[in-house]
Amino acid sequence: MSVVIAGTGSYIPTIKKENSKFNGNRFLNADGSSFESNNTVIIEKFKTITGIEERRYAENHFNASDLGYFAAEKAIEDANINPEELDYIIFAHNFGDVKNAAIQSDILPSLATRVKHLLRINNPNCIAYDILFGCPGWIEGVIQAKAFITANIAKNVLVIGSETLSRVIDKHDRDSMIYSDGAGACVVSASDNEESGILSHASQTFAKDEAYHLFFGNSYDKNEDPNVRYIKMYGRKIYEFALTNVPNAMKIALDKSNIPIDDVKKVLIHQANEKMDEAIIKRFYRLYKKPVPEGIMPMSIHKLGNSSVATVPTLLDLILKNKIDNHNVEKGDVIILASVGAGMNINAIVYRY
Amino acid sequence: MSVVIAGTGSYIPTIKKENSKFNGNRFLNADGSSFESNNTVIIEKFKTITGIEERRYAENHFNASDLGYFAAEKAIEDANINPEELDYIIFAHNFGDVKNAAIQSDILPSLATRVKHLLRINNPNCIAYDILFGCPGWIEGVIQAKAFITANIAKNVLVIGSETLSRVIDKHDRDSMIYSDGAGACVVSASDNEESGILSHASQTFAKDEAYHLFFGNSYDKNEDPNVRYIKMYGRKIYEFALTNVPNAMKIALDKSNIPIDDVKKVLIHQANEKMDEAIIKRFYRLYKKPVPEGIMPMSIHKLGNSSVATVPTLLDLILKNKIDNHNVEKGDVIILASVGAGMNINAIVYRY
Repeated sequence: MSVVIAGTGSYIPTIKKENSKFNGNRFLNADGSSFESNNTVIIEKFKTITGIEERRYAENHFNASDLGYFAAEKAIEDANINPEELDYIIFAHNFGDVKNAAIQSDILPSLATRVKHLLRINNPNCIAYDILFGCPGWIEGVIQAKAFITANIAKNVLVIGSETLSRVIDKHDRDSMIYSDGAGACVVSASDNEESGILSHASQTFAKDEAYHLFFGNSYDKNEDPNVRYIKMYGRKIYEFALTNVPNAMKIALDKSNIPIDDVKKVLIHQANEKMDEAIIKRFYRLYKKPVPEGIMPMSIHKLGNSSVATVPTLLDLILKNKIDNHNVEKGDVIILASVGAGMNINAIVYRY
Repeated sequence: MSVVIAGTGSYIPTIKKENSKFNGNRFLNADGSSFESNNTVIIEKFKTITGIEERRYAENHFNASDLGYFAAEKAIEDANINPEELDYIIFAHNFGDVKNAAIQSDILPSLATRVKHLLRINNPNCIAYDILFGCPGWIEGVIQAKAFITANIAKNVLVIGSETLSRVIDKHDRDSMIYSDGAGACVVSASDNEESGILSHASQTFAKDEAYHLFFGNSYDKNEDPNVRYIKMYGRKIYEFALTNVPNAMKIALDKSNIPIDDVKKVLIHQANEKMDEAIIKRFYRLYKKPVPEGIMPMSIHKLGNSSVATVPTLLDLILKNKIDNHNVEKGDVIILASVGAGMNINAIVYRY
């Protein structure tokens, strides 16, 4: 028996927010002081580092669970499965449903339950739960799905990653330009086809010194209500952490699979920052004393920004549906999915199509 | 190989809130109208139905993750395990860390990461994540731990349930008297002792008509800010739902285990409402055409209220440590753990000590 990704789906929100739309923001340093440079310079520098030109925001009347539902519907259709046959719905997110213009996370009931409700699934044996694991939450959901299938308590698992980061950003923080909204999903299934499926995985949590690299903190505008908090990060620390540890975790997974590095066709890394991803892939190949092959790392960050848990499943779905220029995956190809984020968590999956 | 609960721990918050302390509340109906009866009558009726005399609240400077850490420390000590040997930390909750007097849930990073941080665990292969599954979240964490051990990706898993419901209640809602704070934890481990361990489980999610029986809603005081929401429930609907479905799920689990009903020594049910639990246990035994044995169902609700995910692990820990009068568990005894809550989710585990 193997464990395969039987179908994928994604939802790209319709509101396009270009970098120029941040021109009117009053960006501040963490201590509340103003920048010397003007916004044009700040935004240009931001684009050079992250690669982000524009990002997508969800329409006001949609929440993270709605976006997740849209992606789930497509994944179910792509897998050609009856939703009543799902044994689990695993929903990865970081902030739950945050209504437009509200500041509270709504996670009661779980977002997985909301999707099950929207899918009108009757089967009570389809167990719906949410997982909080930072940006790597969707990949971790796939790893958990594989464990349930291996332990013989599931055959078909819907795994969703969805987030509306646009609702939890501090507009005075330059990092707010990174974040976006989106959703991706897949159906993970037991299969008799031994030729394809998940070959191996690695998963790690670094919490001793790194637990609060990403955190919920106050606005950089010191006049704001101290009881209102936003997504915040120590970007430099995360960059250094990721460069050291992500290539390592990818190597652990690849070595477990016994696949030679030269057989890897694509590496899909969490879309957090283009420069960081380029440095990660370089270090990964350096561990095998190899140069980075051309076209190995597809990117969606330029147009979609960082939608947390949604970046990897969205990128995978876009590639499989031939929607990313010059990137495709053929039957038999080995790919790596990898992510890093709050926790700090890292994970990687080696998969053969 | 078997999967055993190798150690348990719980934390009971120090602030005792007796029913009489609610005498000054201005209770309202869902439509905002006042009650005909006075608070003495309302509170007496509340006590008759739920059995709750008093409940515990966490001290202001502690959050759900702190409570979970206190319980986790005790479970680790009880299991006599080196925390560095933990493969997973699973943290079940419903609202994350809600600071005293704040209204936002803080779930970045995950509460499991916070506990790993407080435990000073170095091992990056100890994977920390949160699960949202309503009140049955802790039992579901144990079921997931068993799956990881069965799938051979873990040997030792710390499972925590912790909640500070006192921070998310609407003081104008009589149901606010139900909720309390608390934490329970256990270490689930692979064992060579085939004689004890988890014998079977059942787990279900009812989301078609039941998804919003428990939800995040506005205060009954219509003058309050509509953007501020609290834990809310349709108590009558939940009562009827639980009476129909919990005994059924318990029977599914027990029948899978092949243990005769007469061999069950204790049934630990989520402490939500004494009358409801008494009706559940009656219906459960009725499914086997048996009367309810005396002393089968230990209760902690009178003094501890409903602390959501924390009730079952706390009750289990208190019994194992001989802290509940006339209730104990001996080597070889078969017990059932069962829960019901937001989702609507239900689960049950049959366990032999």
